[in-house]
Amino acid sequence: MKHFFIILFLISAAMTNAQENTSIQSTIIGLEKAAFVRWSQGDPTGFLEISAPDVVYFDPFLERRLNGLEELTKLYLPLKGQFHSEHYEMLDPLVQATEKMAVLTFNFNSEVGGKIQKWNCTEVYRLETDGKWKIIQTHWSLTKPALK
Amino acid sequence: MKHFFIILFLISAAMTNAQENTSIQSTIIGLEKAAFVRWSQGDPTGFLEISAPDVVYFDPFLERRLNGLEELTKLYLPLKGQFHSEHYEMLDPLVQATEKMAVLTFNFNSEVGGKIQKWNCTEVYRLETDGKWKIIQTHWSLTKPALK
Repeated sequence: MKHFFIILFLISAAMTNAQENTSIQSTIIGLEKAAFVRWSQGDPTGFLEISAPDVVYFDPFLERRLNGLEELTKLYLPLKGQFHSEHYEMLDPLVQATEKMAVLTFNFNSEVGGKIQKWNCTEVYRLETDGKWKIIQTHWSLTKPALK
Repeated sequence: MKHFFIILFLISAAMTNAQENTSIQSTIIGLEKAAFVRWSQGDPTGFLEISAPDVVYFDPFLERRLNGLEELTKLYLPLKGQFHSEHYEMLDPLVQATEKMAVLTFNFNSEVGGKIQKWNCTEVYRLETDGKWKIIQTHWSLTKPALK
């Protein structure tokens, strides 16, 4: 009987864990997709609002990693209203999570001016003390860039 | 007196936390640097040994994200003994950590055949149940690639 309860406890713990992971996964992907909807309309502030003060950031056009929300804001704000993406697609998003940190990776296709741009992306989210998930690391890079 | 002990407890908890973070930081950077020593000598297995079974991986020469240690092993093993880096430098490494997950970011300069290659890198490490930190995500990209 004792074994029965131990097994029941373990199954229940495993199920709770799986449910928590599913919940983290849908929260993270939901945050990212909502920010993309705003981004595609030329509004980069959606990403700024879900980035933590200590966020770090890479993209292919920068000389070095950006450190902190202030540096990222200086990069993003001037882009407001400067672009529009007709179609974009997040391919095969994957979330690897622990209780307080989660990494989201995906390939990304974006159509700008009739041309498809292909990207690799890594976002790291952290659960903040106010219960909200915030991005602490963003890494955008080109998929197989055509090099000189 | 009660307040004194509460304050003492809070200071002590904050110090423990800071010490843990410093310890995680030096562990992660130590693991990464040790793997680089082997890599620079043409041995990619150092990175494979510290990667988790569910590791995912991006680099600029791949069509899509690699999923899992088996796919990464197929990419890395044929490179064994095929390269040698005379000089390399990890620039401004930063570790952002929670108890069970940590993200390491840095810029990286590598000298191959007298030419400097510049990279952006994000590594995500997870604390496994055996107490070891393993890489669950690697993202390498070129810093300001010269595009066609």
